[in-house]
Amino acid sequence: MSGQTSEQLTVAIVGGSGYAGGEFLRLALGHPHLKVTQVTSERSAGTPVSMVHPNLRGRTTLKFRKLAELEEADVIVLALPHNSAAKRLSEFESKGRTLIDLSADFRLKDPEMYKKVYGEAHPAPEKLGEWIYGNPEIHREELVGATRIACAGCFATSVILALYPLLKLGVLLPKDIIATGLVGSSAAGASPSESSHHPERAGSLRVYKPVGHRHTAEAQQELPGHFPLHLTAISTPRVRGILTTAQAWVPDGYSDRDVWSAYREVYAAEPFIRIVKVARGIHRYPDPALLDGTNYCDIGFEMDQDTGRVVLMSAIDNLVKGTAGHAIQSLNIAQGWEETTGLEFAGLHPA
Amino acid sequence: MSGQTSEQLTVAIVGGSGYAGGEFLRLALGHPHLKVTQVTSERSAGTPVSMVHPNLRGRTTLKFRKLAELEEADVIVLALPHNSAAKRLSEFESKGRTLIDLSADFRLKDPEMYKKVYGEAHPAPEKLGEWIYGNPEIHREELVGATRIACAGCFATSVILALYPLLKLGVLLPKDIIATGLVGSSAAGASPSESSHHPERAGSLRVYKPVGHRHTAEAQQELPGHFPLHLTAISTPRVRGILTTAQAWVPDGYSDRDVWSAYREVYAAEPFIRIVKVARGIHRYPDPALLDGTNYCDIGFEMDQDTGRVVLMSAIDNLVKGTAGHAIQSLNIAQGWEETTGLEFAGLHPA
Amino acid sequence: MSGQTSEQLTVAIVGGSGYAGGEFLRLALGHPHLKVTQVTSERSAGTPVSMVHPNLRGRTTLKFRKLAELEEADVIVLALPHNSAAKRLSEFESKGRTLIDLSADFRLKDPEMYKKVYGEAHPAPEKLGEWIYGNPEIHREELVGATRIACAGCFATSVILALYPLLKLGVLLPKDIIATGLVGSSAAGASPSESSHHPERAGSLRVYKPVGHRHTAEAQQELPGHFPLHLTAISTPRVRGILTTAQAWVPDGYSDRDVWSAYREVYAAEPFIRIVKVARGIHRYPDPALLDGTNYCDIGFEMDQDTGRVVLMSAIDNLVKGTAGHAIQSLNIAQGWEETTGLEFAGLHPA
Amino acid sequence: MSGQTSEQLTVAIVGGSGYAGGEFLRLALGHPHLKVTQVTSERSAGTPVSMVHPNLRGRTTLKFRKLAELEEADVIVLALPHNSAAKRLSEFESKGRTLIDLSADFRLKDPEMYKKVYGEAHPAPEKLGEWIYGNPEIHREELVGATRIACAGCFATSVILALYPLLKLGVLLPKDIIATGLVGSSAAGASPSESSHHPERAGSLRVYKPVGHRHTAEAQQELPGHFPLHLTAISTPRVRGILTTAQAWVPDGYSDRDVWSAYREVYAAEPFIRIVKVARGIHRYPDPALLDGTNYCDIGFEMDQDTGRVVLMSAIDNLVKGTAGHAIQSLNIAQGWEETTGLEFAGLHPA
Repeated sequence: MSGQTSEQLTVAIVGGSGYAGGEFLRLALGHPHLKVTQVTSERSAGTPVSMVHPNLRGRTTLKFRKLAELEEADVIVLALPHNSAAKRLSEFESKGRTLIDLSADFRLKDPEMYKKVYGEAHPAPEKLGEWIYGNPEIHREELVGATRIACAGCFATSVILALYPLLKLGVLLPKDIIATGLVGSSAAGASPSESSHHPERAGSLRVYKPVGHRHTAEAQQELPGHFPLHLTAISTPRVRGILTTAQAWVPDGYSDRDVWSAYREVYAAEPFIRIVKVARGIHRYPDPALLDGTNYCDIGFEMDQDTGRVVLMSAIDNLVKGTAGHAIQSLNIAQGWEETTGLEFAGLHPA
Repeated sequence: MSGQTSEQLTVAIVGGSGYAGGEFLRLALGHPHLKVTQVTSERSAGTPVSMVHPNLRGRTTLKFRKLAELEEADVIVLALPHNSAAKRLSEFESKGRTLIDLSADFRLKDPEMYKKVYGEAHPAPEKLGEWIYGNPEIHREELVGATRIACAGCFATSVILALYPLLKLGVLLPKDIIATGLVGSSAAGASPSESSHHPERAGSLRVYKPVGHRHTAEAQQELPGHFPLHLTAISTPRVRGILTTAQAWVPDGYSDRDVWSAYREVYAAEPFIRIVKVARGIHRYPDPALLDGTNYCDIGFEMDQDTGRVVLMSAIDNLVKGTAGHAIQSLNIAQGWEETTGLEFAGLHPA
Repeated sequence: MSGQTSEQLTVAIVGGSGYAGGEFLRLALGHPHLKVTQVTSERSAGTPVSMVHPNLRGRTTLKFRKLAELEEADVIVLALPHNSAAKRLSEFESKGRTLIDLSADFRLKDPEMYKKVYGEAHPAPEKLGEWIYGNPEIHREELVGATRIACAGCFATSVILALYPLLKLGVLLPKDIIATGLVGSSAAGASPSESSHHPERAGSLRVYKPVGHRHTAEAQQELPGHFPLHLTAISTPRVRGILTTAQAWVPDGYSDRDVWSAYREVYAAEPFIRIVKVARGIHRYPDPALLDGTNYCDIGFEMDQDTGRVVLMSAIDNLVKGTAGHAIQSLNIAQGWEETTGLEFAGLHPA
Repeated sequence: MSGQTSEQLTVAIVGGSGYAGGEFLRLALGHPHLKVTQVTSERSAGTPVSMVHPNLRGRTTLKFRKLAELEEADVIVLALPHNSAAKRLSEFESKGRTLIDLSADFRLKDPEMYKKVYGEAHPAPEKLGEWIYGNPEIHREELVGATRIACAGCFATSVILALYPLLKLGVLLPKDIIATGLVGSSAAGASPSESSHHPERAGSLRVYKPVGHRHTAEAQQELPGHFPLHLTAISTPRVRGILTTAQAWVPDGYSDRDVWSAYREVYAAEPFIRIVKVARGIHRYPDPALLDGTNYCDIGFEMDQDTGRVVLMSAIDNLVKGTAGHAIQSLNIAQGWEETTGLEFAGLHPA
């Protein structure tokens, strides 16, 4: 396998009228090794994809087709509601060599946990072991050559990437960790609802999941060690983006400089992680406003030396680094392509 | 009839789960001469009104009832979709002495025009003559003692109030007038739709009615003289508010000072019209941001002396001065109460 | 002292061109027992106050004067930068019987703590004991007859009111409490800066005080008991409003219903506190979008029965319940007026 | 000259701490034929450019230098305030073969008009003839080989591109054309001011130039024929983007289909112009929300058959197609590179 432009895998996106599928489509259209040949949507079958994703006007002449019309492709991207992909897994397995699932269906290893979190028995528990959790920063080696990629949840990604280095290195005290996520409206998907009605949502700061967020299970599965992790999710007036603050605890004597070192040790070679902690100016910590459309996860922190509290911060675009972007990144790794291929957009300022 | 606080009329709001009805309710609850006794909603019957209008928590213990349960009241406020109130008019006539309609059903005097604009024959054309168009600045005298008030449309109100003085005084040249309205999302009502879905709407500037806006007919009916009036409506990221610019033409030699005089002559005694034209600072012209919740219509203008072009500007809160506020103002006039009663809120800065 | 409308105290607002002073002015102009006779601003002396606070056009003809021109008034409201009022205290004492300070100068009882938090020795430590901390929910009895009122900080208010009942009743476990505040841009004041520049701020979610927030000292002074309290402040795209989540811990067996009881026990008679916790619909918890311009503090909560974590939430308008509104509320109590006088605005929906 | 990636021109950006210069820098860093070697800023000299443009963290290690330190480069991009570049023209001429000016200094051909519009005599009137107006859709042939490119103004670009086809083909009646531009806050630049202060600007719809907009002169210079053109500019809560509606007049019998034909005839081969007019769905006309970061100009229209009024609409990102993007596009043409090089970003949905 090589990085030659001449090689192109065909891609089918199943459930491509939503935001996750649309974002994968956008990225895939600009990816030199991918050729999107099919996009399905039950509701919009027959219409041009650019009717639903108007940013792609002039970029593609593809039309949506029904799932029943799905033909073979090298890569099948599943952008369906939770618990849909797993139920039809064998069908997708027969149509493509590589499957990428953007839903929660194959993220959890433990079918009992799946049932507890998603309220239904997993339709294909025997298959869970085949899937790699699509977080390149933790599973890069396993992703090489992978043909089953279960993309990490967006809020989970922001929590995991903020905490992973300090937990991996065994730094954090075994005290409660509180992670608060400020989430844009696109995370709730493309279907209108009362809560997404613009007059109700535009100026709102709404705690929508104070306790019991489903991504807690993912984050606990992926993060090293045993510790109590608590998530709270709040919706904001932004469309894209998640800003997470994770409140954790370090031992006496552990310094700001030590946190720096820990992040650098673990993330030094990561192409999409930037440590953002600047002493002056207005852009001192991660801010999702700078990340729309990018695959970056910006990470920052601040310590309260008096108490040992450390505030870890992470910002991502929920649809890119939180969904379609790390799917592409994982696929790049799986195929042996340059990891940043198709993910070059730097983001805008101002934005 | 007097201004004694002791006098209170009972009020029933029909269709009170929408934004227009909810806003009338908010204002009526703070009005010393009104006592809201009933609010109907087919969808929410049985639930407290504060479930739907959470700003009224602690302000009222009223519950929605079904329209079929409507009982008598002194004032019946009809906040139904277009063409609903007119169809059941006799029912409402039998339940209350004073009817206030917030829809378009009784605004146009000419049933032919109604049919042309709204696409259906008017259900009660013989009744149209009984209704007063609820624009206090033009119809104050007719409103005294009125028992049928047809509230002006929100965009129409902003267009009419910007243009009325110069047309009444015969100043404008008989050239095309272009009025462009920038409208908040609440004007489209409380029902979720694809176009009101937050991720689609939040950052959008969307021309939604470049030509053929229905309020053209109202504005032409109410404004003096014969001249071509053209409306374009654009949605903005705001929730409330309309900013209208009307491009019109004055004769050679007509000056800035003359426009001032015209507005002052016609609007000098108006309690809710402010002429906003300031030489310096950042608040030089009308801005709907300052008017949320108020009954003001701020009006400004600027002249291009070289061409005779005058840009007239008006700003309102579409739900107050554009709907429920001028309904209250009209009712105050009809009942002989102090015209500003219940409409005292000054608006916020910053906002 | 009585509640007669005929009684009016004269009011001078010192430093009235900022947002806090402007908001006090707006509320005082609508207050039947207050008559604003002077507003000072060094920068804007000589210009009408409505040039700076355009919402007050048509509401007042007052002009700003210089502080040097301050004359006597019954009530002097100090809306100056921190450490300004205390330095000129004797001057203000000579000009008015009642002083209300909106800055941080007289909030902390302990001059050592003041020095630690604000970096300077307090200019009038011997006077600190004369001032009542202007939080009516905690200090109502002390406020009766008070002539020195030190208004609580806005973020502190949201933290205190969320936590006070559970701490007063001794319910919370002595574990770390994490309070995260999402704050609107008006909290940073009326002076333009790089961080408030619209293109930089409009879409931003910016952690601006992850640790070391000054209001920690206020909150610890006012809240009963000894426990570690940690504050993190994040700026949001809103102009007004604070939404605070406080993560705290209750004993085994403590239930959701118990939290309800605690709040009800302590806040039952509070005119401006509403417990917002609704099982269905989209307005289930406090949301600052509904509170712009109001004096409410909405409070909600949710429990994680598995872990004993309780997420307490509070929402306020930082300029009203967080500043000028509770100043008015405190003054109403001090003077024996109806506590809600001048604070009747219900807030808007949608907003 | 060829399209080989190996060829790279060195680029110096003069005045690179502003938004226009920053955007040119972003695009140039992703351009295979450009190598940015210098960025000047008097205020930020010595600091990394990513301190000011945080989207470029990890993308460049360049630091700002002072203008006095400017060295030679193949391309010098002038992103200075108006009337600055022209005054130092000979200095820049000596440092680089190709000059691209992003200000208004070299747009107008007539020095008298320049003086009238900008209030000062032009510092180098004899040089005006050397510059090509950087609008590729009108001046593509002249741009081939050009070494002096004066980039079109952002609002002017949106007006010109909406009107050009119908005026070039002589379709429009010689009646007044009214163009109304809704403009994002980034168009006013990177310097904080009272009008850009977030609390004042965030919710504001502010007419900032009802008459007398400077870009009128540019638009009249570039558009074919003689006709009265009137511009009104309104600021919106967006950061980027311009939505322009131009109200014009076509003869009796001219149809919707004819407008389509006219646009297609003139713009058929344009890589960055898309005609957006869709019969159904919510994205029926141009919307700047979809264009952030892209070089597209989306154009739409609607006719009022009864009156001959045609509403032309255009949307751009003011910093890309309105500034830095068409500078790159012009340079691509001048150098014989593929015209779309470095401008491939498709834009986001949702956004």
